[in-house]
Amino acid sequence: MSLVTEKISNTSLKNGDLSRENLALNYKRVRDFSHHLASPLTTEDYVIQSMPDVSPTKWHLAHTSWFFEEFVLSKLYKDYQSINPKYKFLFNSYYVQVGERHCRPKRGLISRPTVDEIYEYREFVNKNMEKLFNNVDDKDFSRIAAVIQIGIHHEQQHQELVLTDIKHIFSENPLDPVYSKRPDSNSDVTTGNLKWIKFEEGIYNIGNNGSSFGYDNEFPEHKSLVQGFYLASRLVTNGEYLEFINDGGYQKTELWLSDGWSTVSSNGWRAPLYWDDTQGEWWQFTLNGFKKVNPDEPVSHISFYEAEAFARWSGARLPSEFEWEVASKGLPIDGNFVEKGHFNPVATDSNEKNLQQMYGDVWEWTRSPYSPYPGYKTLPGALGEYNGKFMCNQMVLRGGSCATSETHIRNTYRNFFPPESRWQFMGLRLAKDEN
Amino acid sequence: MSLVTEKISNTSLKNGDLSRENLALNYKRVRDFSHHLASPLTTEDYVIQSMPDVSPTKWHLAHTSWFFEEFVLSKLYKDYQSINPKYKFLFNSYYVQVGERHCRPKRGLISRPTVDEIYEYREFVNKNMEKLFNNVDDKDFSRIAAVIQIGIHHEQQHQELVLTDIKHIFSENPLDPVYSKRPDSNSDVTTGNLKWIKFEEGIYNIGNNGSSFGYDNEFPEHKSLVQGFYLASRLVTNGEYLEFINDGGYQKTELWLSDGWSTVSSNGWRAPLYWDDTQGEWWQFTLNGFKKVNPDEPVSHISFYEAEAFARWSGARLPSEFEWEVASKGLPIDGNFVEKGHFNPVATDSNEKNLQQMYGDVWEWTRSPYSPYPGYKTLPGALGEYNGKFMCNQMVLRGGSCATSETHIRNTYRNFFPPESRWQFMGLRLAKDEN
Amino acid sequence: MSLVTEKISNTSLKNGDLSRENLALNYKRVRDFSHHLASPLTTEDYVIQSMPDVSPTKWHLAHTSWFFEEFVLSKLYKDYQSINPKYKFLFNSYYVQVGERHCRPKRGLISRPTVDEIYEYREFVNKNMEKLFNNVDDKDFSRIAAVIQIGIHHEQQHQELVLTDIKHIFSENPLDPVYSKRPDSNSDVTTGNLKWIKFEEGIYNIGNNGSSFGYDNEFPEHKSLVQGFYLASRLVTNGEYLEFINDGGYQKTELWLSDGWSTVSSNGWRAPLYWDDTQGEWWQFTLNGFKKVNPDEPVSHISFYEAEAFARWSGARLPSEFEWEVASKGLPIDGNFVEKGHFNPVATDSNEKNLQQMYGDVWEWTRSPYSPYPGYKTLPGALGEYNGKFMCNQMVLRGGSCATSETHIRNTYRNFFPPESRWQFMGLRLAKDEN
Amino acid sequence: MSLVTEKISNTSLKNGDLSRENLALNYKRVRDFSHHLASPLTTEDYVIQSMPDVSPTKWHLAHTSWFFEEFVLSKLYKDYQSINPKYKFLFNSYYVQVGERHCRPKRGLISRPTVDEIYEYREFVNKNMEKLFNNVDDKDFSRIAAVIQIGIHHEQQHQELVLTDIKHIFSENPLDPVYSKRPDSNSDVTTGNLKWIKFEEGIYNIGNNGSSFGYDNEFPEHKSLVQGFYLASRLVTNGEYLEFINDGGYQKTELWLSDGWSTVSSNGWRAPLYWDDTQGEWWQFTLNGFKKVNPDEPVSHISFYEAEAFARWSGARLPSEFEWEVASKGLPIDGNFVEKGHFNPVATDSNEKNLQQMYGDVWEWTRSPYSPYPGYKTLPGALGEYNGKFMCNQMVLRGGSCATSETHIRNTYRNFFPPESRWQFMGLRLAKDEN
Repeated sequence: MSLVTEKISNTSLKNGDLSRENLALNYKRVRDFSHHLASPLTTEDYVIQSMPDVSPTKWHLAHTSWFFEEFVLSKLYKDYQSINPKYKFLFNSYYVQVGERHCRPKRGLISRPTVDEIYEYREFVNKNMEKLFNNVDDKDFSRIAAVIQIGIHHEQQHQELVLTDIKHIFSENPLDPVYSKRPDSNSDVTTGNLKWIKFEEGIYNIGNNGSSFGYDNEFPEHKSLVQGFYLASRLVTNGEYLEFINDGGYQKTELWLSDGWSTVSSNGWRAPLYWDDTQGEWWQFTLNGFKKVNPDEPVSHISFYEAEAFARWSGARLPSEFEWEVASKGLPIDGNFVEKGHFNPVATDSNEKNLQQMYGDVWEWTRSPYSPYPGYKTLPGALGEYNGKFMCNQMVLRGGSCATSETHIRNTYRNFFPPESRWQFMGLRLAKDEN
Repeated sequence: MSLVTEKISNTSLKNGDLSRENLALNYKRVRDFSHHLASPLTTEDYVIQSMPDVSPTKWHLAHTSWFFEEFVLSKLYKDYQSINPKYKFLFNSYYVQVGERHCRPKRGLISRPTVDEIYEYREFVNKNMEKLFNNVDDKDFSRIAAVIQIGIHHEQQHQELVLTDIKHIFSENPLDPVYSKRPDSNSDVTTGNLKWIKFEEGIYNIGNNGSSFGYDNEFPEHKSLVQGFYLASRLVTNGEYLEFINDGGYQKTELWLSDGWSTVSSNGWRAPLYWDDTQGEWWQFTLNGFKKVNPDEPVSHISFYEAEAFARWSGARLPSEFEWEVASKGLPIDGNFVEKGHFNPVATDSNEKNLQQMYGDVWEWTRSPYSPYPGYKTLPGALGEYNGKFMCNQMVLRGGSCATSETHIRNTYRNFFPPESRWQFMGLRLAKDEN
Repeated sequence: MSLVTEKISNTSLKNGDLSRENLALNYKRVRDFSHHLASPLTTEDYVIQSMPDVSPTKWHLAHTSWFFEEFVLSKLYKDYQSINPKYKFLFNSYYVQVGERHCRPKRGLISRPTVDEIYEYREFVNKNMEKLFNNVDDKDFSRIAAVIQIGIHHEQQHQELVLTDIKHIFSENPLDPVYSKRPDSNSDVTTGNLKWIKFEEGIYNIGNNGSSFGYDNEFPEHKSLVQGFYLASRLVTNGEYLEFINDGGYQKTELWLSDGWSTVSSNGWRAPLYWDDTQGEWWQFTLNGFKKVNPDEPVSHISFYEAEAFARWSGARLPSEFEWEVASKGLPIDGNFVEKGHFNPVATDSNEKNLQQMYGDVWEWTRSPYSPYPGYKTLPGALGEYNGKFMCNQMVLRGGSCATSETHIRNTYRNFFPPESRWQFMGLRLAKDEN
Repeated sequence: MSLVTEKISNTSLKNGDLSRENLALNYKRVRDFSHHLASPLTTEDYVIQSMPDVSPTKWHLAHTSWFFEEFVLSKLYKDYQSINPKYKFLFNSYYVQVGERHCRPKRGLISRPTVDEIYEYREFVNKNMEKLFNNVDDKDFSRIAAVIQIGIHHEQQHQELVLTDIKHIFSENPLDPVYSKRPDSNSDVTTGNLKWIKFEEGIYNIGNNGSSFGYDNEFPEHKSLVQGFYLASRLVTNGEYLEFINDGGYQKTELWLSDGWSTVSSNGWRAPLYWDDTQGEWWQFTLNGFKKVNPDEPVSHISFYEAEAFARWSGARLPSEFEWEVASKGLPIDGNFVEKGHFNPVATDSNEKNLQQMYGDVWEWTRSPYSPYPGYKTLPGALGEYNGKFMCNQMVLRGGSCATSETHIRNTYRNFFPPESRWQFMGLRLAKDEN
């Protein structure tokens, strides 16, 4: 274990605040926030898995606890005993080196442990972590601090999934359950005109330089020659996407990638996920209820294929992930994050010449396949499975969404999903070549 | 509606006790018994659908209530209002003439209405039915009595499914939940020797003569020439089935029907459902927990294909449904039914020369495809979909099981399932030709 | 082997003409007729398998030859050598007891042996059979005669498949290849009115009494009580079926069996196989080319589900196979068989009160699932796989078709196919209950 | 049309020899070479499609002819008539803008046109092209010359597919047909030791500068910063791959990408395609027959997933496509190409310090997803579908194979296939980071 954590602290987490106080504080905040997000749910809501990509809320709550048991507590305490020895099997996700695990598409078949028992399990882990924060000696703490930090960020990732998964689950219910009754903010806002911001060709540093926390896939920082480009000042809106639909965008083969066309055809897609054509008017299912599509809000719940086809239809293209990173470098991390409590992208009326909505609202699809950076090394041990093994058949998204924690995102953060995914808050921003 | 019910009372339910008092009493008993069967469950257990054939417990509880609303209350009271207008859509099963319905394989995606709301719904329907029993005038009651009787039997069918479905749901859980802690009865009993009982060739009346309740598929009573045959005095046991397994029964193609062989091969079956080869010893998952296979208990959870292959391996065959009906005519309806509370077939030590275990324990696969009797007519209206439309690709089973109500079964009762089904309590009894 | 053949000659083939001269003559005729049927094909046509049910023509030609090698020549001559030892593997169909065999759905992937090599193989087998007919002593011949007879009937069955399979193969080709240029006979005939012929309740002998050849599934002859019924004097026509289509028959759920409805829905069926709605007019692909649907011809290429739904829509039903057998007993075996060279059902103008079209034109779907007769025994050895193992999930058809040999069919003949099959010449005749 | 071809001649084909004489000569050579490659086949071999990715040889021969009709002849001659108007539908591949096309997985269902008719079609197109070369005036020729050049390269691509497809087709046949009897060359050669060649970090020109022919996906040439790296002097051999197999490479999850592991598991892969474990010894199916695996030959017929896992197991990685291009710049285009007539990779004994086998033998998987170059533009019109629409979910391969024409390949050539593909001659070369 020492090897693992030393390695992490050396390469990935240089200069992050790994002090006992800071981690203990953040641990508590993040754990509490998970409960906060689950608070609107009934017991029945916690159980359901509406498709293989979705996990039941109770699984998320348990899995994020198991992470601390597996990678922290049981590493530090030789004879650590979990509350139930079978939880290790049930709540492991994909870390095959850690042992056999319960089959992912069967997570919705498990009524026991009950929701109450899951909360007892979380409490049990919290108590043990509290003990660790209070009692462990400095040397041991320094060995494990970086992994605790990963565990905190890991739980934040699952908080985002709690929201997007429950949205998918609720959307399958003809009763249209409402997650949050909060009325629409910004419903009277009109989106400003799109401007093109120019960025010059240059050799740029790409990736995380280790001055703050980062996942392994952001390393190593490296130089890259980026050709000059233009980036749109804001996200694409529902209104613009409606023009694409009304122009027959879903019927014009020449706009689509080959795989995109077969995906659209075999699934019969003709609008973003959650959109519903109700007697000639587009409505959408949201976490705030079923409501009319607002043309000023950023478009969301579209696949990479749809983003790419929309961009081609617009006479533009998607930015590369390097272009996005170059453009956003130095911008304040500010936007419509989960802490705002909208749980939906919101319209913005800013009409400035600067970049807007780079963070929050929706993850922005890029044209970049998810690949290792030059010199990339996976973490040793089971944590090495965290990111590297997914570097094929996925596309990079940048910037975070209305379901992302503000403290989770950063300029170098690389999110990734298969190009046909739609259930996350996924949208797009346009880019253009210099000439 | 008057046509429907008159028809039923004339043809199907002659001489059944359709009095107001009797039906009110039976209605209450059956409705209470559903609650009794669900009482060991946690809220989470009610929600899950572990395969398309299985329905969540809360769906069963709601659907059986909807039946009374759809076919009784809303027929009698023109302006009848359900507690929620969408329940009609959610809790219809396959009655397509009654309107659109929620897709069967998606029943496990519906967290709302919650379990509490389902119980409120049941209470709401009960109150309305109580009002009906108390207030409706005789003429109207006589129009609707036969349908109430069907509704009562319909709920009994779903009670059996509640048990077999929850068994399947629990079996998917690595924690091995226990439905009923009751210790095994008859665990020290040794099954007696099998005897062959002879029945002579003759022209027999087959089917329900209308002197008591029957489903449409038991009508009309008709004459049939049945060749002489021998029937085994008792059910096939686990011990006998183990001999078949140990003799390589699952590997010998020549024992199997062609469709049976492909089913066994593509599913990798090598034992009954719920059996588990734990280090050389066979265990089985039951509603009373995970326990060693008892060789004296009747074998259960086998498909028609396995029953048929076992019979061929034995040098015998399955009985036809007519042979079973001829043999059981006049026998008392007595056996290991759900009221006994075993929730599992039990060993019997009787060594008499008479037929044993004809009722209860396990449904007995017959060699008879499920077909209409000569002169069969479906019920008019939506209730006509109850039975007739399934008369293809299914096999008849007879006799009821340890999950069947004693008051539900009869000599002419025809149950039916596709030949690959295994999740009901399904076993077999052997038969032989005269020479 | 001696056991097998004695058994066959004793039970199944009593009184058939098993003389050396007769079998040698019939062998030659049938073998030549296979070549005659294949004569319109190009080399490329012989190779293709257009769906798993279809086999390439060259496979049929080889498989029917292999049958004589496997069950006759190699039984009689201990050191018999085939022309290529791998042919045994390639050209076995489903006789698992005879050894491993090439996977059925992959028959269309085998370009070698070439068509020329297959004809050499047939010649090789013919030479050896000729030698057998000329030289084998009487005792040995009597041991094997019954199997030769089966081999002859077996090749006739595959001749029917050669035609129906090549029809399916050609139908997939946008160039609409024509198998036979022969102009339509009976194109100016108007079908007569349908009459209902009455048959009285009685105890009838059903099955083959052994006075002529029969497959094992026709035995044993046995008594059955058949209720009185009416049978339609003729087949259902395209014109009548068009009324069903135009009345929305394919859209009305209440007309369909449950499995039928899902088959129709998931396949998008809205007319018989090979029908094509060309700008508001129905055309059909036939072995004589693409032509307008003739309303006076018997409807063909419909599944059991469609036949059953049509019958319900008509206010009638399908006959049982026993009813069909009772009605046709004693009728001359005469009709539109393959020898007529139509390769398609033809209209008939007869207006008599008698049964017409009982033989030939199209196989008639019955309401009877394919099941063993009381006392049924399979043939011993690998030939026991011929029929018995398919007795599940299939429906019985009677009467032969325009692709059947006149010398192949008989009153007791039981054909069988899964209820969703359509690529054979399959149609229907209506029946009704007495009251 | 003028726009299209001008564009091509300006951007893609600058400086290529587009003279009438040169194109006429190359046209004839390439067309003849297709016939040469098909000459070992029987008529039956031309018909078969063994999986969706494979096309029948006769389809390849027709499709490459259709290309000249569609993009050259019918553009130049307004009233051009093909030999059969339906060929346009049958032999279009994926150019959706050109009109409806026959469904790809159904190419093996088309027996007509026959092979002879296909050769007549090719002759017909050749005659018309000859006429064009002889008679068209210079202005028209200059408009169309670039497309003729594409058509020639297009036919070369399909020649490679003819070989890899027929290999797959033959491999499905238990008779193990042999395409070419030529005995193994280099069977006594021992592969030299692998050396690591170093390349320095720098800004390199990547892509085709237009001085010779190139497909649209090689443009535009652009600068890229490539970090320093090491490249292996030669390809990975069968012997080295066997060590990976014997070390349990196919069983060690930690070596695999997540998608790779599910592909390997669900397909049960444990060796390259065409390898067969015959009683403890590895054999492989080749176009020269079934033969023992030669440890000195380059490994072939592995997917990207297997190449990537092998590299990880070796402690190395796959090169990026830019690294490959940087390393091979300036090397002579020399190697084991299709003209050598081996139809299989061969061992090489060279022990020099230089790069070997960069061209020919096997396509080399790179770590680079197939993406557009900065500033990439598709060709206008239907030819724009040639490459761009496949830029998702595919990986780049470089260098050509033993089935590639020497005149077809170049330093900037980008081949691409989905990561699970194995039926091309696909292998790998290792790379390493600088430190």
